[in-house]
Amino acid sequence: MIVVVVGRQPARYQETAPDVDLRFVDRLDDAADVFGEMEAVIGRVPPDVLAKAPRLRWVHSPSAGVDADLTSEMLASPVVLTSSAGNGGISLAEHSILLMLMLDRDVPRWMRAQADRRWDHYRHGELAGRTLGIYGLGNSGIDLAQKAKAFHMRVLGVRRRPEQPSPYVDQVCGLDEMLAESDFVVVTAPRTPSTAGVFDRDAFARMKETAYFICISRGGIADDDALLEALRSGQIAGAGLDAHGVEPLPADSPFWSLPNVIVTPHNGATSHGTARRGEEIVLENLRRFVAGESLHNVVDKAAGY
Amino acid sequence: MIVVVVGRQPARYQETAPDVDLRFVDRLDDAADVFGEMEAVIGRVPPDVLAKAPRLRWVHSPSAGVDADLTSEMLASPVVLTSSAGNGGISLAEHSILLMLMLDRDVPRWMRAQADRRWDHYRHGELAGRTLGIYGLGNSGIDLAQKAKAFHMRVLGVRRRPEQPSPYVDQVCGLDEMLAESDFVVVTAPRTPSTAGVFDRDAFARMKETAYFICISRGGIADDDALLEALRSGQIAGAGLDAHGVEPLPADSPFWSLPNVIVTPHNGATSHGTARRGEEIVLENLRRFVAGESLHNVVDKAAGY
Repeated sequence: MIVVVVGRQPARYQETAPDVDLRFVDRLDDAADVFGEMEAVIGRVPPDVLAKAPRLRWVHSPSAGVDADLTSEMLASPVVLTSSAGNGGISLAEHSILLMLMLDRDVPRWMRAQADRRWDHYRHGELAGRTLGIYGLGNSGIDLAQKAKAFHMRVLGVRRRPEQPSPYVDQVCGLDEMLAESDFVVVTAPRTPSTAGVFDRDAFARMKETAYFICISRGGIADDDALLEALRSGQIAGAGLDAHGVEPLPADSPFWSLPNVIVTPHNGATSHGTARRGEEIVLENLRRFVAGESLHNVVDKAAGY
Repeated sequence: MIVVVVGRQPARYQETAPDVDLRFVDRLDDAADVFGEMEAVIGRVPPDVLAKAPRLRWVHSPSAGVDADLTSEMLASPVVLTSSAGNGGISLAEHSILLMLMLDRDVPRWMRAQADRRWDHYRHGELAGRTLGIYGLGNSGIDLAQKAKAFHMRVLGVRRRPEQPSPYVDQVCGLDEMLAESDFVVVTAPRTPSTAGVFDRDAFARMKETAYFICISRGGIADDDALLEALRSGQIAGAGLDAHGVEPLPADSPFWSLPNVIVTPHNGATSHGTARRGEEIVLENLRRFVAGESLHNVVDKAAGY
């Protein structure tokens, strides 16, 4: 059995699957000689390679969100796609709290004052007592809810399957209710056909004028034009954006320079912990694949995650 | 009975103590005509006024830390001093987490990139799995410990009375052990004769080179020269400083421009929540004073808080 492993160090893979013909490559194209025989790929598989791999049974994406893996060819293929979901949840929840605190306390103002050696003392908010609305209660959403409770916040959550357990969430509710009541709206959902464009002009209009919009999962869930308009008109108070509609965010994007926006470069989960957890997830799946056991994190292709 | 109330809105005081002769002033000196008769002051009382107030029995400080109230005259006086301790704990714990995340993720780097419209993506740390050492387990220290547990951190604490309950703290230990094991050291203690200068050259030498020092309570607990040296030499990785040895921090202070230091202007607790909680504390004490009941937050003058 041939398994192609893209962009990873061999040692732990060899240890996990000593009897498998593992091919370690920097880019998938470097394994072109075995496309016809490979049964699994740990890495992203584009449509042209999928077409050349009749024996392929399993693809493991290095990402938690698989919107880029789910090409129409992958949707139509019987290949099992698994994700790295859960690798970055903790790190993204940390980033959410960071952005919430930075917006609430106007950290850019302190940074400017520090650069100017100015003592700029002012009254600001605190998270305690405020309402957080989380759009998506997966790994990052639930971890964020846990943190928010330790910040003495009220936590509302919106999720596709409200019957699933939602620890730390005070109330699972509908989108309109969440938008109307939240002081901070944090998007942690994957980008799927049913989440794309959900935050449109109407959604921003339902938010409080004092509320902040934060996105740490994927661009495209918010309509960037509607978001820009809401930020410029004062419809909402500000935004913290780690995920963007176009990435890298172009130098001429207006988001960079809006005074009430904090931009980070899709960098919230780029931590050593995320890499370590991602490695654990794929190694466990490799072990299961070789042993013929069912895999973790199998993507529901129709749902998109 | 005359009670002087400095710098506060009358309504709720009048409601709480309708039978008391309340004198509302912007500055204590504006009440000079009643210094001889006043029995209580809600505000700070300097030595010269203390000497002119023979009937004074109670002073309530607007601050949580009373180092500025505890003049030698106040120490020698039988006047009961109460503090506003507990007003800002939650807000200071939020500020601590903010500074920890900003240092760990190098937020100033992202802010510079945003100003330059640059997509500067890099690997950073996460708080999960790291060790937090808290120096002082009062209101802010315990609230910080609670938050840190939701960030999946290990929490060590150092306190004057280790026999007191320390919820959310994994281990109460000695200073040397805390310094050696912590990735983040946060000072939340009051400035007292026994805390002043505790963070000296020897203390910073015991910290990890990868560790961050954060102070959100009072300057003077760290020796600023020793801290500067530790930051410049790479003895420690960086610092987040809300409280400073001299305030306002002078424009020529080297702390403003060290690349591994985040300066905020003693502003961590300056929130609406702190003001609201402070008001509740003083109103309850006023009610108790008028009713002849024992007061909350009575300062142990010898201990300094």
